[in-house]
Amino acid sequence: MNIAILFGGSSFEHEISIVSAITMKKVLKRSTLTYIFVSPDRKFYLIDTEKINSKLFSSGEYKKSKELTLKQNGFFIDGMFGSKSVDFDVALNLIHGRDGEDGKISSMMTYFNIPFISPRMEASALSYNKLYTKFLAESLGVKTVAYEYLSKNDERIISMDYPVIIKPVRLGSSIGVSIVKEASELDYALDVAFEFDTDVIVEPFIEGVKEFNQAGAYTNDWELSIVEEPHKEEFLDFEKKYMDFSRDSQVRAADITDTLKEKIQESFKKIYDPLFKGSVIRCDFFVVEDEVLLNEINPIPGSMANYLFEDFESMIERLSKALPTEQKITVDYQYIHSIQSAKGKA
Amino acid sequence: MNIAILFGGSSFEHEISIVSAITMKKVLKRSTLTYIFVSPDRKFYLIDTEKINSKLFSSGEYKKSKELTLKQNGFFIDGMFGSKSVDFDVALNLIHGRDGEDGKISSMMTYFNIPFISPRMEASALSYNKLYTKFLAESLGVKTVAYEYLSKNDERIISMDYPVIIKPVRLGSSIGVSIVKEASELDYALDVAFEFDTDVIVEPFIEGVKEFNQAGAYTNDWELSIVEEPHKEEFLDFEKKYMDFSRDSQVRAADITDTLKEKIQESFKKIYDPLFKGSVIRCDFFVVEDEVLLNEINPIPGSMANYLFEDFESMIERLSKALPTEQKITVDYQYIHSIQSAKGKA
Repeated sequence: MNIAILFGGSSFEHEISIVSAITMKKVLKRSTLTYIFVSPDRKFYLIDTEKINSKLFSSGEYKKSKELTLKQNGFFIDGMFGSKSVDFDVALNLIHGRDGEDGKISSMMTYFNIPFISPRMEASALSYNKLYTKFLAESLGVKTVAYEYLSKNDERIISMDYPVIIKPVRLGSSIGVSIVKEASELDYALDVAFEFDTDVIVEPFIEGVKEFNQAGAYTNDWELSIVEEPHKEEFLDFEKKYMDFSRDSQVRAADITDTLKEKIQESFKKIYDPLFKGSVIRCDFFVVEDEVLLNEINPIPGSMANYLFEDFESMIERLSKALPTEQKITVDYQYIHSIQSAKGKA
Repeated sequence: MNIAILFGGSSFEHEISIVSAITMKKVLKRSTLTYIFVSPDRKFYLIDTEKINSKLFSSGEYKKSKELTLKQNGFFIDGMFGSKSVDFDVALNLIHGRDGEDGKISSMMTYFNIPFISPRMEASALSYNKLYTKFLAESLGVKTVAYEYLSKNDERIISMDYPVIIKPVRLGSSIGVSIVKEASELDYALDVAFEFDTDVIVEPFIEGVKEFNQAGAYTNDWELSIVEEPHKEEFLDFEKKYMDFSRDSQVRAADITDTLKEKIQESFKKIYDPLFKGSVIRCDFFVVEDEVLLNEINPIPGSMANYLFEDFESMIERLSKALPTEQKITVDYQYIHSIQSAKGKA
């Protein structure tokens, strides 16, 4: 199968997307990979799979690659004598953060009729925003961590006990996130968060909370990964998380009871089906007093969470054959015809 | 000012978008209009403003117009010797229904750095879906009509008293909507709704409910329209609503108390700010026992609800100078540089 890897983007996570994308070479071994880079100024470039390495991007050398244009049914190389489409079977959206996770890339892939693996637009818009994720989870009967919501111009008052964790609503990879141990630190943490976003959520910081990650997809059946208990420091800073995006070998399953595993998997399925069809996502759960709480949805997880699956590549192959289809809308101009008749113009 | 009108789209409301677009000629009299048509197969065509009429589209003659390509900073006419951008100051998204209201057009305008008037992607994704609109309103302290939610594969059981109204969650212009007077009619109404969407909401049908429409935008200050009490039949069928999209002269304000007007305007502002900045929307409210309930948000109202404003064109001019800007993200490849250094590759 020929898989186009879309990566880069105008995002704070541009660089970790490059790391994720390069990691795919070690993960998708049987497949032909076609690399399509989205530059920080949002142009598309066709990158030579043989030559891909991180320096190509940091040096700006990628600009010598062929630029692509997005049109109906594909990405095209324009030339003097017409344009030629870039050949692939399915696009894999590996753009972390803005553009990739917020729904823009999904919108464009749907609009331009390109088969793609990623949460669709609606799923992206909801899961990219941590506040909307709360609404979604609540409506699906999945419990989440308690929270308060603050907008940039709101009074900076919270009613929760310290320590708390401050998160910009629209960013991933711990960017702009702070743990606040007492009231005197709140202002600074909010200043940091509001550097990145206009809205934040505040959650209780639970020391030593049990965290479990579950990835998965639905193809013709559920394809659930192992449950991982990530080894965490207080929380991952950007640099450590960065290295995390280059993981390419399977990790060990968490040592948990079948009951807990089932609870985690039931919550995952409630979130995933049907909104996230067509994607591989990772949900991060907290377990507090035997209760499974959704912490966050990773709509484009680092290196696609490949390290949680026994045979990631086969799963991707099955998923690419089970993508959701758009409703077909036929425009027959029946109403315009009838108005024209009424006006005697027809 | 040169305003590009984006209209058409792959939508059940394709034809009424054409009507809305042609109406703009009578409404935006001082401005130069540049018409960009989105065909049912989602190609872009530059339509001659002098020649625009509904038959151009129903006859398929539009296909002889110049096709445009979307690239960074604009729509382009490609030719043998390079490509030329189409000149305009701001795009006005007039695509009703799918593509225009669901966030795809907004995603693309943002991505390709084209100034545009329309709800942004997040606002679109939430307001296009009547269920998510409920979540949004509730979170902002705006009351809505009671509802139940049914997905295509759910058991067809509702606990509400009849009569009820069934609405597909993702469509506008009354498409797929039915009033159900007794239990025996429920199945048929759901069959109809599920023809158009995978999810529906069920609301009590309130005979003779008072309905009021409020349109507006935020430019440098609030620009609120008059409050209209629409004259409604049981509910507007598609054909009647269609004619509604060609309204071009101001209507009379509803005869209501200042207190009620203020309540309606307060609710409008809560919904609009800050999520809908950059757009002109219309909110339809019900008033039940002195309580103002949000019925629905029209993110791209028919003919832009121009008939509710005293000077629509000046408002559009002010709005085009007060569009929200995207956060600037600079990619400096600092992490990739540091990895390269660590690996000794730099």
